[in-house]
Amino acid sequence: MVLSLLYQKVLEAFRRIQKNIYATPIQTSRILNNISQQEVYLKCENLQRTGSFKFRGAYSALSNLTPSERKKGVVAFSSGNHAQAVALAGKLLGIKAVNCMPSDAPKMKQEATKAYRAEIILYDRLTENREEIAQNLQETYGYSLIPPFDKEEVIAGAGTATLELLQEVPDIDTILVPIGGGGLLAGTAIAAHGINPKISIIGVEPELANDTYLSFQAGKRISIPPSSTIADGLRTPCSGELTFPIIQKEVSQIVTVTEQEIRDAVLFAFTRLKIVIEPSGAVPLAVLISGKLRSPSSKVGVILSGGNIDPLSFHKTLS
Amino acid sequence: MVLSLLYQKVLEAFRRIQKNIYATPIQTSRILNNISQQEVYLKCENLQRTGSFKFRGAYSALSNLTPSERKKGVVAFSSGNHAQAVALAGKLLGIKAVNCMPSDAPKMKQEATKAYRAEIILYDRLTENREEIAQNLQETYGYSLIPPFDKEEVIAGAGTATLELLQEVPDIDTILVPIGGGGLLAGTAIAAHGINPKISIIGVEPELANDTYLSFQAGKRISIPPSSTIADGLRTPCSGELTFPIIQKEVSQIVTVTEQEIRDAVLFAFTRLKIVIEPSGAVPLAVLISGKLRSPSSKVGVILSGGNIDPLSFHKTLS
Repeated sequence: MVLSLLYQKVLEAFRRIQKNIYATPIQTSRILNNISQQEVYLKCENLQRTGSFKFRGAYSALSNLTPSERKKGVVAFSSGNHAQAVALAGKLLGIKAVNCMPSDAPKMKQEATKAYRAEIILYDRLTENREEIAQNLQETYGYSLIPPFDKEEVIAGAGTATLELLQEVPDIDTILVPIGGGGLLAGTAIAAHGINPKISIIGVEPELANDTYLSFQAGKRISIPPSSTIADGLRTPCSGELTFPIIQKEVSQIVTVTEQEIRDAVLFAFTRLKIVIEPSGAVPLAVLISGKLRSPSSKVGVILSGGNIDPLSFHKTLS
Repeated sequence: MVLSLLYQKVLEAFRRIQKNIYATPIQTSRILNNISQQEVYLKCENLQRTGSFKFRGAYSALSNLTPSERKKGVVAFSSGNHAQAVALAGKLLGIKAVNCMPSDAPKMKQEATKAYRAEIILYDRLTENREEIAQNLQETYGYSLIPPFDKEEVIAGAGTATLELLQEVPDIDTILVPIGGGGLLAGTAIAAHGINPKISIIGVEPELANDTYLSFQAGKRISIPPSSTIADGLRTPCSGELTFPIIQKEVSQIVTVTEQEIRDAVLFAFTRLKIVIEPSGAVPLAVLISGKLRSPSSKVGVILSGGNIDPLSFHKTLS
């Protein structure tokens, strides 16, 4: 699909979700500007409903279902944040939500999903195939599958954060985005380039989960074995069928960061920015702090994608 | 001094400091509103320069010195946040700053003070008299003493946070404020009542450092023995000569909170609000979460006074 049509989808998604999402604040920090030698604007999606940007995509997808689809319910599979997002969107729209979660997902994410009254099915991330489980449920009960990234409405919803970012700071010239399956990256690229094609979009991945980096270099989708990166939301083994072509076309560069750089960024956010971000949300910040961003830029937007880390995991992250 | 004159001092302080402080954001949270059954507006002074509201008072005081006083330098004594604040204000104004700190002050606060190039003198909080040490330095070197709360310019500076709060949310009817020596409480009361005398000002203290609560009941200043509350910024044994009369006249109520309630509030801020606040800054939040605020109110302002807690202390706070 051409960019202008995809951009229309982002605008449509924004109209559907606008009243139900938070227009999250944009934080700036003098010390971060000094360290990175750039003017940085942090779009705080850790303050989004359910604690991550995922709510935008989930609400976008669920609010686009037909009345008969809504009646049957939805099923999602997710490392956590997408599950919470679908659960809350379902609750708000009166749609039954079932979530398949890996049994090693952070306890806080499991609890939060339950709190939104979604049904939870746990599976072993290393031995079971989550897509298969979800598909069975889909066939048996007629649930609509809400994938975490590889769906047009989900990508479009994720892109709405960038509409807000550029409305508030129109002259941003670079945007840094974490990469799991590439939904946030693709959505951000579409939204940004729909407004201004000159904006550089840079994706950031953990070295330990560098599937999109490898795919980007190879010019085709490459899968990696299950990753143990502390950025648990970015363990996706391969970028999506829908997201990858958009990334190939719209993204300037993909940068990877080490586990230590991610830890340092989480710590920096805590001690200097006074904000809580989960390791997955910290990867773009890791690029800025470590000085890895070579392209000099005057105004950098960062999508701080989520803040769902429990205090115990936070402590472990740092030691 | 009558209220209108004190209020003028707050406005003057605001003019002196406005260009050098951050106009900190005001955060709201649906879950906090639900739990407290009130509409809550959090004035995030944890995002102020040096990580606490103390910078307002310090810059207010230092910027009011005469040229000859500036040339000689300043001395402060503080549990930490005031020290950092004086150090940065001194650095920005080109005034030498010396800080006397208790040797058990959080390491992060000591380091941060050093980072602003202030000279540090450590003392034993339980056996040495900090006022005496500071006074000696004052007499020997001609330093101006910058007390942490009991000085008109410091109180006025602290009050400027409330000017910003009420400018953004004019119909707030109650403001909750932590109490150390009472500078923030007095300054808040002056600023709020200068704008609208009907606003209820409520001070909050740890049960383990309830000197102002006791003084307020007794109608005179009462000292307590050294306190071990985790809210290390509120361990002041007695409210001030200047602050107490203002508190007596302008404050509606003083509420105390337990150590567990303070811990719960720090944890709530981390997991639900995604913000980092130190235990001293968490006491007003503790009141709201614990349901201790009896007076029903539609719009409550909270001064989240600071966010200087290192990850290790944070971990200890929770266990």
